[in-house]
Amino acid sequence: MDYEQKSIELHKKMKGKIELKSKFPLNTKDDLSVAYTPGVAAVSNLVAKNPKAAYTHTIKSHTICVLSDGSAVLGLGNIGPLGALPVMEGKAVIFKEFGGLDAFPICVDTQDKNEIIDFARKIAPVFGGINLEDIAAPKCFEIEEALQDLPIPVMHDDQHGAAVVTLAALINSAKLSKLKLSDLTVVVNGAGAAGLAITKLLLDENSEIGTPVKEIIVCDSKGIINQKRQDLNPYKKEIAKLTNFRDLSGGLHDALKGAKVFIGFSVAGVLMPEWIKDMASDPWVFAMANPLPEIMPQKAKEAGAYIVGTGRSDFPNQINNALAFPGIFRGALDSRATKITKKMKIAAAMALANFVGEPSPERVLPSPLEQGVHEAVASSVMRAAMSTD
Amino acid sequence: MDYEQKSIELHKKMKGKIELKSKFPLNTKDDLSVAYTPGVAAVSNLVAKNPKAAYTHTIKSHTICVLSDGSAVLGLGNIGPLGALPVMEGKAVIFKEFGGLDAFPICVDTQDKNEIIDFARKIAPVFGGINLEDIAAPKCFEIEEALQDLPIPVMHDDQHGAAVVTLAALINSAKLSKLKLSDLTVVVNGAGAAGLAITKLLLDENSEIGTPVKEIIVCDSKGIINQKRQDLNPYKKEIAKLTNFRDLSGGLHDALKGAKVFIGFSVAGVLMPEWIKDMASDPWVFAMANPLPEIMPQKAKEAGAYIVGTGRSDFPNQINNALAFPGIFRGALDSRATKITKKMKIAAAMALANFVGEPSPERVLPSPLEQGVHEAVASSVMRAAMSTD
Repeated sequence: MDYEQKSIELHKKMKGKIELKSKFPLNTKDDLSVAYTPGVAAVSNLVAKNPKAAYTHTIKSHTICVLSDGSAVLGLGNIGPLGALPVMEGKAVIFKEFGGLDAFPICVDTQDKNEIIDFARKIAPVFGGINLEDIAAPKCFEIEEALQDLPIPVMHDDQHGAAVVTLAALINSAKLSKLKLSDLTVVVNGAGAAGLAITKLLLDENSEIGTPVKEIIVCDSKGIINQKRQDLNPYKKEIAKLTNFRDLSGGLHDALKGAKVFIGFSVAGVLMPEWIKDMASDPWVFAMANPLPEIMPQKAKEAGAYIVGTGRSDFPNQINNALAFPGIFRGALDSRATKITKKMKIAAAMALANFVGEPSPERVLPSPLEQGVHEAVASSVMRAAMSTD
Repeated sequence: MDYEQKSIELHKKMKGKIELKSKFPLNTKDDLSVAYTPGVAAVSNLVAKNPKAAYTHTIKSHTICVLSDGSAVLGLGNIGPLGALPVMEGKAVIFKEFGGLDAFPICVDTQDKNEIIDFARKIAPVFGGINLEDIAAPKCFEIEEALQDLPIPVMHDDQHGAAVVTLAALINSAKLSKLKLSDLTVVVNGAGAAGLAITKLLLDENSEIGTPVKEIIVCDSKGIINQKRQDLNPYKKEIAKLTNFRDLSGGLHDALKGAKVFIGFSVAGVLMPEWIKDMASDPWVFAMANPLPEIMPQKAKEAGAYIVGTGRSDFPNQINNALAFPGIFRGALDSRATKITKKMKIAAAMALANFVGEPSPERVLPSPLEQGVHEAVASSVMRAAMSTD
């Protein structure tokens, strides 16, 4: 199927992908008097006096803001807020269909970090949570950090959605290979939103999954990140301190020697088949560049990879954010969590891994279309949010 | 019926009044590939390159922002953004049910004029129009004015919705009384958003309705507005120059002597029955204070009023904004108008007046529940927007 042509046709036919629906009919004067004045005054008074009632009497209980400035949209780059709108509408569709949550796309007409932070603070009252989306690194990190003091959960999906799903894939790959995560040397290629987020998640001490992994080496477009490099932004500097204990220098090929795992959130075709032969035996290759991965799955397999995943739906083991964010936000809202903690993210990854049952090299992850997968993530996240450990 | 109790119960049962609905099902991988990646990239590219495509391929074509800071909510006053949310949800319900438009409530966490202007500019990309709502005077005027350079229509409903419906009531009352609007001396009590907007609309030269009216006298809580007063904000100062040609001073009673029309957007009970006896013969009394009008209809009738209207649905001739804003925005969006002009407002009032057919003292306005009334407003507004006169 020509997805692009089909997508253009359907968007035109439907004039976008979402609509508002009234849950109150307006057929009589009484209907109007209950939904609107004079009846609604009592609800407004109730909420004004007791803000918690917004979670029981208004849309705040189930409504997410999908917020983007259009500065890093899919593989399209900085196409601005209007160009980002179809993608954010798609996010809203996924929130609804998979998470049962009502999400509204807000594409903001500024790309200034502080203005976006300020805007997000001002729009917060109506929403139960904010999903930051397709905002360029490194400002995406700063925006997300700055908004953690809001009384609603704020999560940048490009970081944590991708990290959670990748962690789930690693958990099941370890099970298959009869390894612990702490046995693994991992190369992360790409030091943007997703690459840095999975790195931090894998470095975390967590009794449930036995992390941290043994070692991580992060590469950006200039090569291996180490503490000698002078060209690092503050986020890469921080990562340099936490990774690459052997103080390696060089390119991706140097990083990969002896490593068990390749995780790519980078660009098409950068992983050479012959480099896979220099990795540890039966290596795992997760090549998430989109639409063309760092290496095509067939080539990775031929070069000796045991488990291969990509960002694409037409190959096995799709690392798809849509597996994570609907259930994570659902669990956060259902537990009235004010933050999405590392514990909740790990709980989401565990739920995804467990959902698979008996993993195989072709199935270390479920599909987002499987019945019950998002509910499983949501309840795991909710339990993690509410546990007092 | 106890509307307030019923409203609280229903809001709790429904968790608010609106929900998002996906127009795309997500049952297969193909569905995901069309609604989201990779297919959606083509739509994003199309819109980024040609912003007009947002009106054919995204929700911008049919989606309105209902924007409030909660500073002047119904008769409840300044209850803040969260308290305003149930009212703005109600607005969204009315937009959908009456205008077939998808409106989303945005209650903004600032009450600073410039911050609200700035916020509205930043949120504009996603929406086809902005309906400002329940923002206190006089900042509501400044905010609306400042936003007129946006490429989408921005209208403060508390001003113009009320003014349009009142004008419609006057047109039909004049027909009943065999008068022209230019025969009328009108007293407007209340110099807030609605009072000043109806005053300006009635002062306008417009060949279709034969305005301006003969004379308008505006009163605020201190009495008659004239150019000698030192306590006027800039908006009242401007109105002082355009009204009260006889340079009257004093209170509402002084203003009413010999006047044909009372228009109240003020507070309960301020119009004494005996003052109506001092008005012109067979006067018209439109008493829109809510929930308790400036005078109860029965008392106004007993005191000699020929035509009486209020803001309430349980009396004849309800001056209800819901008659105006769904059709006005529908007509504006359907014509891709970038502003809601005076001509479009007058067209809306004419459509409402004509919809009644043969008016009677008990029916100078239709009900917002009548079949076809919002479509009639929308097409009249669209014609006005597209005519080149």
